[in-house]
Amino acid sequence: MSAWKIHQFGKKPILKNPILIEGLPGIGNVGKVAVDFIIDELKAKKLYGFFSYTFPHSVFVNEKNLVELPSIDMYYKKTKNYDLLFLAGDVQPIDEVGSYEFSDMILDIAEEFKCSEIITLGGIGLHEIPKHPKVYCTANNKEIIKRYKKKVDINEKLYGVVGPIVGVSGLLIGLSKRRKIDAISLLAETFGHPMYLGVAGAKENLKVLEKKFDLDINLKKLEKEISDMESELIKKTKELTDVSKTTAIKKIKSKFKDVNYIG
Amino acid sequence: MSAWKIHQFGKKPILKNPILIEGLPGIGNVGKVAVDFIIDELKAKKLYGFFSYTFPHSVFVNEKNLVELPSIDMYYKKTKNYDLLFLAGDVQPIDEVGSYEFSDMILDIAEEFKCSEIITLGGIGLHEIPKHPKVYCTANNKEIIKRYKKKVDINEKLYGVVGPIVGVSGLLIGLSKRRKIDAISLLAETFGHPMYLGVAGAKENLKVLEKKFDLDINLKKLEKEISDMESELIKKTKELTDVSKTTAIKKIKSKFKDVNYIG
Amino acid sequence: MSAWKIHQFGKKPILKNPILIEGLPGIGNVGKVAVDFIIDELKAKKLYGFFSYTFPHSVFVNEKNLVELPSIDMYYKKTKNYDLLFLAGDVQPIDEVGSYEFSDMILDIAEEFKCSEIITLGGIGLHEIPKHPKVYCTANNKEIIKRYKKKVDINEKLYGVVGPIVGVSGLLIGLSKRRKIDAISLLAETFGHPMYLGVAGAKENLKVLEKKFDLDINLKKLEKEISDMESELIKKTKELTDVSKTTAIKKIKSKFKDVNYIG
Amino acid sequence: MSAWKIHQFGKKPILKNPILIEGLPGIGNVGKVAVDFIIDELKAKKLYGFFSYTFPHSVFVNEKNLVELPSIDMYYKKTKNYDLLFLAGDVQPIDEVGSYEFSDMILDIAEEFKCSEIITLGGIGLHEIPKHPKVYCTANNKEIIKRYKKKVDINEKLYGVVGPIVGVSGLLIGLSKRRKIDAISLLAETFGHPMYLGVAGAKENLKVLEKKFDLDINLKKLEKEISDMESELIKKTKELTDVSKTTAIKKIKSKFKDVNYIG
Repeated sequence: MSAWKIHQFGKKPILKNPILIEGLPGIGNVGKVAVDFIIDELKAKKLYGFFSYTFPHSVFVNEKNLVELPSIDMYYKKTKNYDLLFLAGDVQPIDEVGSYEFSDMILDIAEEFKCSEIITLGGIGLHEIPKHPKVYCTANNKEIIKRYKKKVDINEKLYGVVGPIVGVSGLLIGLSKRRKIDAISLLAETFGHPMYLGVAGAKENLKVLEKKFDLDINLKKLEKEISDMESELIKKTKELTDVSKTTAIKKIKSKFKDVNYIG
Repeated sequence: MSAWKIHQFGKKPILKNPILIEGLPGIGNVGKVAVDFIIDELKAKKLYGFFSYTFPHSVFVNEKNLVELPSIDMYYKKTKNYDLLFLAGDVQPIDEVGSYEFSDMILDIAEEFKCSEIITLGGIGLHEIPKHPKVYCTANNKEIIKRYKKKVDINEKLYGVVGPIVGVSGLLIGLSKRRKIDAISLLAETFGHPMYLGVAGAKENLKVLEKKFDLDINLKKLEKEISDMESELIKKTKELTDVSKTTAIKKIKSKFKDVNYIG
Repeated sequence: MSAWKIHQFGKKPILKNPILIEGLPGIGNVGKVAVDFIIDELKAKKLYGFFSYTFPHSVFVNEKNLVELPSIDMYYKKTKNYDLLFLAGDVQPIDEVGSYEFSDMILDIAEEFKCSEIITLGGIGLHEIPKHPKVYCTANNKEIIKRYKKKVDINEKLYGVVGPIVGVSGLLIGLSKRRKIDAISLLAETFGHPMYLGVAGAKENLKVLEKKFDLDINLKKLEKEISDMESELIKKTKELTDVSKTTAIKKIKSKFKDVNYIG
Repeated sequence: MSAWKIHQFGKKPILKNPILIEGLPGIGNVGKVAVDFIIDELKAKKLYGFFSYTFPHSVFVNEKNLVELPSIDMYYKKTKNYDLLFLAGDVQPIDEVGSYEFSDMILDIAEEFKCSEIITLGGIGLHEIPKHPKVYCTANNKEIIKRYKKKVDINEKLYGVVGPIVGVSGLLIGLSKRRKIDAISLLAETFGHPMYLGVAGAKENLKVLEKKFDLDINLKKLEKEISDMESELIKKTKELTDVSKTTAIKKIKSKFKDVNYIG
């Protein structure tokens, strides 16, 4: 129905039972911030670009002042211990059918690469800014949770605590069960305000990934980068104010007005 | 359009003019609470699982801390006097087309089994918590109403009292007329607050079914189970609070704050 | 896309360049009240029933306490001077595509019958209840307006006064131009409150039709019927109150609370 | 999916690497006011009419008191230095899929005519009425921005200042990159109030076009025409008030109540 288009960048790599890590926009953008950072840090290579007419019908203005269509991309990186695939992007499919179609398409790719595991990253929105955000998990079977708990400090008592996990982060876990791929969702506490950028939560998610996969990423850089971005945005926000109803970028700008403490 | 998938569990049973009882989520979840309880009590067997890309694009976290895709299922049970089919689930199809398609698909199955009768269960939302909720009915012909009134105390003066009956509970009654299957809707009074779980109304609906079909169910257990669920939820709710906009589980949690008296 | 189903009742009549009069739900239900009344008064015969999965997914409870699926029907009546077709119903197609598809399907039928003219009836919502509601018109060509103004007192200065005419009442006029069928819309002033039933406006529309087509209808009866309906509804409303979000029937009930003066 | 219909008016002209200028409804209608005016001033000829069932399902009443279906049209004009194509209309496609489909269809036509450049016109909504609205630009490559900055005073620092550019104005820029057509968006500051008609912003956009293409248009006329329209509307608005929820025309009427200073 929604006719997804896939564009391949470069040659298809040979990967050894890779682990797929998803971080699309969501609550506090906790997953997006984490995966965008890790892709950057590890210099992961772009493999696929996904596009669909059901994406938001708008373009972004990038830092070079040029327009960019919304996109979701898959990257890969061979690290010393694991081969990794990353799913990152500006948007999520906007409706039910698109979200299911996209998730099943991603799982087709995961099967093709004989993925050993899928990890989705997200946030749990609290009424207050958490001082020490905890990471919770849920999964599509008990074994993967046990494997994680052996290595990292992670809370698995999510039942009755969160509502449904909406979008690709949830569907990838649910739909991968039928395909017998182990899948786990790491959900870090964050402030549930729509304007809040959950950097602290993203950091906690990254710590779990670092410990589990022995990645070579510099988490201090994450805080620095975000801090630079803030100053830049505050300066610009004073000059002009956008009153359009579209919210993606507005969200980032607005948080400097509404929130004192940033992740 | 929405491509429904049906999965069959086990062998198809031979049923003798079964009666189909529907209880999907709706006002006060009166129908869902009743049918979920009766399936549990009678140890009905799962026969079909229904799935569609038009379901909500989210997953639930269950009591084992594992994710579950939303689902609608059909169960069956041969009781001493009647063969019964049950339609239960977490969700309703979300849009008009999906709701009609699903209802007609269920009626195809009902015809195949030569169903003698269809009963849909629902709630009538009042502005106050009813002390003694009454059960009303409407149907697709006068005869089925007469048959019920002979056996049970039930009010049929619904005209001008309720608005349209929305979703599968209404469509199954309306669409079954053309197929010449008798169908009746039992609507129990409940509190119309979006956070309220209509256990008292569900109980009244169950009483009607028990008397009519001479079922062997323990209604006291219903109250006990719910009471346990409450304490459990109240405890957990204090620890963490979900601020996502999705409401299914939040509804259940929130009622403990907004309402003093529970069903 | 939305797969309309047409059901024919009885034999197709031979009509002589009939005039099609549309009155589906809309502002103040001015068109619906008028056309439902005229069908009743003239004892017009049902010719076609239209149905679609894109109709609202709900059923109504009728005065016999039985459920009814939403429907749109076409009726016909040969009067002494003119052959008439009527389009009446409980609902309008709910979305853009459905509204266009339905309107073009109705125009196919109009062409088949060699309709000489199409009249759509609607309301103009004012901020106050009009004491003497005026009737305005717009059309798809100047000639049909001239013909009406010769016979009846009607205001044609609508430009800049109303916004777009939404739904089937507007589209039938706009789309019939290409098919070279003269089409006019009669819009009577009414109170724009969502709960208001525009009987007074409907009556003014009916007066125009009566004068133009020399119909034999008893307009006093319209007021009496409505008055009976009111008392009946007020009585019932006190007993039970529906808090569901669906509004069709609620609208009718609620007006007795919010508005003092009725049509 | 949404089945676009294209109607051609007259013979297809031979154009020499024309420039396509888009001005559909949007923030402050800055683009629409500018392109409608320029089409009128240059007496551009209508070449194509576009229509789709996904357009708003409503009709407008025009100044002759006749109904008009919503439409989007393409016009052309050979000026002394450049051949120009214009895209103008009452509406934008209403959803994501329609917006992408329409934009790609327009780019098919642009390719067929070997368009050398695409310009989309829009507004940046501010919290206050700007006294001297500035014009900003973004594009699909650096070179076209350079070419414009050589000739006209234009600000290119949009990054971090506006949110996404929504609809056809944004997609034409984004999607033309793949087709290797240079495309630029000129965005003039305007008041972001939904009722405000951004004539001042439109004028700034027109000044840029005039200087760049050496057009022969009389900008003083723009102000006069708008001023006439205002008096006419104020007069009529007092007589009758539309309370329908549709907003297109209401917007124009309402600004005279809510805003003191007009463009």
